[in-house]
Amino acid sequence: MQNIYNFSAGPAMLPKVVLQQAQEELCDWHGTGMSVMEMSHRDKDFTAIREKTEHTLRELLAIPKHYHVLFLSGGATSQFAMVPMNLLGNKKKAAYIHSGQWSKKAMEEAARYAAVDVLAQVEQRNGIHHLPNINDLPVTDEHAYFYYTDNETISGMQFHYLPQTGNVPLVSDMTSSILSKPLDIERYGLIYASAQKNLGHAGVTVVIVRDDCVKPVQEYTPTMFRYQIHIDNQSCYNTPPTYAWYFLGLMLDWVKQQGGVSVMQQQCQQKTKRLYELLDNHDFYQSPIAPADRSHLNVPFTLAKPVLEGAFLEQAKQAGLVGLTGHRSVGGMRASIYLGMPEAGVKKLVEFMQNFAEKNK
Amino acid sequence: MQNIYNFSAGPAMLPKVVLQQAQEELCDWHGTGMSVMEMSHRDKDFTAIREKTEHTLRELLAIPKHYHVLFLSGGATSQFAMVPMNLLGNKKKAAYIHSGQWSKKAMEEAARYAAVDVLAQVEQRNGIHHLPNINDLPVTDEHAYFYYTDNETISGMQFHYLPQTGNVPLVSDMTSSILSKPLDIERYGLIYASAQKNLGHAGVTVVIVRDDCVKPVQEYTPTMFRYQIHIDNQSCYNTPPTYAWYFLGLMLDWVKQQGGVSVMQQQCQQKTKRLYELLDNHDFYQSPIAPADRSHLNVPFTLAKPVLEGAFLEQAKQAGLVGLTGHRSVGGMRASIYLGMPEAGVKKLVEFMQNFAEKNK
Repeated sequence: MQNIYNFSAGPAMLPKVVLQQAQEELCDWHGTGMSVMEMSHRDKDFTAIREKTEHTLRELLAIPKHYHVLFLSGGATSQFAMVPMNLLGNKKKAAYIHSGQWSKKAMEEAARYAAVDVLAQVEQRNGIHHLPNINDLPVTDEHAYFYYTDNETISGMQFHYLPQTGNVPLVSDMTSSILSKPLDIERYGLIYASAQKNLGHAGVTVVIVRDDCVKPVQEYTPTMFRYQIHIDNQSCYNTPPTYAWYFLGLMLDWVKQQGGVSVMQQQCQQKTKRLYELLDNHDFYQSPIAPADRSHLNVPFTLAKPVLEGAFLEQAKQAGLVGLTGHRSVGGMRASIYLGMPEAGVKKLVEFMQNFAEKNK
Repeated sequence: MQNIYNFSAGPAMLPKVVLQQAQEELCDWHGTGMSVMEMSHRDKDFTAIREKTEHTLRELLAIPKHYHVLFLSGGATSQFAMVPMNLLGNKKKAAYIHSGQWSKKAMEEAARYAAVDVLAQVEQRNGIHHLPNINDLPVTDEHAYFYYTDNETISGMQFHYLPQTGNVPLVSDMTSSILSKPLDIERYGLIYASAQKNLGHAGVTVVIVRDDCVKPVQEYTPTMFRYQIHIDNQSCYNTPPTYAWYFLGLMLDWVKQQGGVSVMQQQCQQKTKRLYELLDNHDFYQSPIAPADRSHLNVPFTLAKPVLEGAFLEQAKQAGLVGLTGHRSVGGMRASIYLGMPEAGVKKLVEFMQNFAEKNK
């Protein structure tokens, strides 16, 4: 059977060796005679799994002690509400960057709880999308935090620098970019990422938060939406999504074995570079994103002859290249290239695209 | 290697054949060359999985069309808030039965949003716990709903009848008892159950709700806590916990193959009967629960000589009988016997207990 390369935006392709390890251990974890799925979350075996997972994440991202690491349920969409609910404190305003659909969703949710100040937004010039400059913006002490989306998976745009926000805590949605580059954690107040792109499978969300950023909440905040509750209970206030948490640990071990996040960064850059070169050098394809703002994880593109899109997707599928349909809101094509996508998959995609262009020019 | 029988209260023992099927399919689901973990939740393969899962659950529990079936994240603890947030509407009061620690947690969370009327509570007489009679209580139109916990896992108490609540919607936490007996769904307004006892592994929660029970919510209600959002999006507003959902589907198929919920009910009664008989016929052991109120899923018990508890647990473990420690809040021992516990496990436990009593009388 041919290899399938899955370019979905998430849930997404996972490293084969990680899946194989999970498969091997599924019915009997380390000779316990039990599946991880069957273990009590308060049992010593699962405690060891979760402690190791946190330890490895702290090691990979060099997370200092005064940052809490939480493993929560509810996905990034829950964080859209949890961030304002827990970080506003006595303040009424929060600063947001509108860089695409995910930041827009985050802003809309935050508006239930805060006055949302949109300090900058994505721009379109001559059909090309540009991210705004997010330095030198009017961030003030009135803002409880400064929120931006590191990587927009739908449009395929990414900030390649960290904004200066003074004393205002920087909050970043890194769902699609966590582990794809080293981070200077102390520059952030809070980072979160749901798992189904770079951290395993859907069902668990990592939150990394500096201890002084967590403020008292309003009475209407559900218990499950209170960071402090999860901090006080090592993310085990209720039964956490144990299997997704365990699988996340396997992914972290794999990243460590590959050489850590610097190696991941090189690989991500190398994989997408190949694809961007094709888009720039071939009239048959276009990238709708300004070169400086292109994502190292999601590469959207269009065909010069849009009528061929159906044929492109169909023939790609026959070649084992799946999940290339662009997001339903923007159309076109998109190749999502997370940590689990091997270089061979990108190479095969590039070759396929070259051949397809030749045959249809 | 000897079989391990895991009596944990949840996450809990799962049927071996279900785990084996998951193991077999983990790297390649039905020849797609992909793991279910890697599938986009909007992909046709995963859509087929989730539609089949809902269909099977509707079939097993005979759920009528005017009931929605949701597959959510966040566990039962999220439902403690979601129930009042979504069911109160214009009303201010809700009726609760205080039958144990889970109902207490539900009441405490509801008190953030509603005036909680505790209509009845658990009683202790001569060291024996009794459930209150929950019929003929002063339920009125002022109550938005009537809430009770079908089975209290910690104390091991279960209601074996449905209360009459007139037009007031009946809400039941069935986390530990769903699929263990047939249900007359039309008697309920809402039922919920997180997965890690009878429905698979932790990370997904089933909500079954009659369409007219879902009311407009307050503005502060997070998007993820709005039933209507999940109803409108077939539980795919955001990326759902796809793998836990899939695994739940495997569990449902297994229940169906076993003969459905009536067969499950017989098995649950048979398994716990064996254990209760031992407790009642042996001075060495005690059940702290009144016979009429005993759970068919969680069997707590104490030793006449509490000093032997450590030896009991240690020797049980050596015999492959694990997870028997009582909840940290009540002490003693507890055997949780969900659908995945084979009769052989209970038989072995009973034999072990008889021998242990003989040796230590």
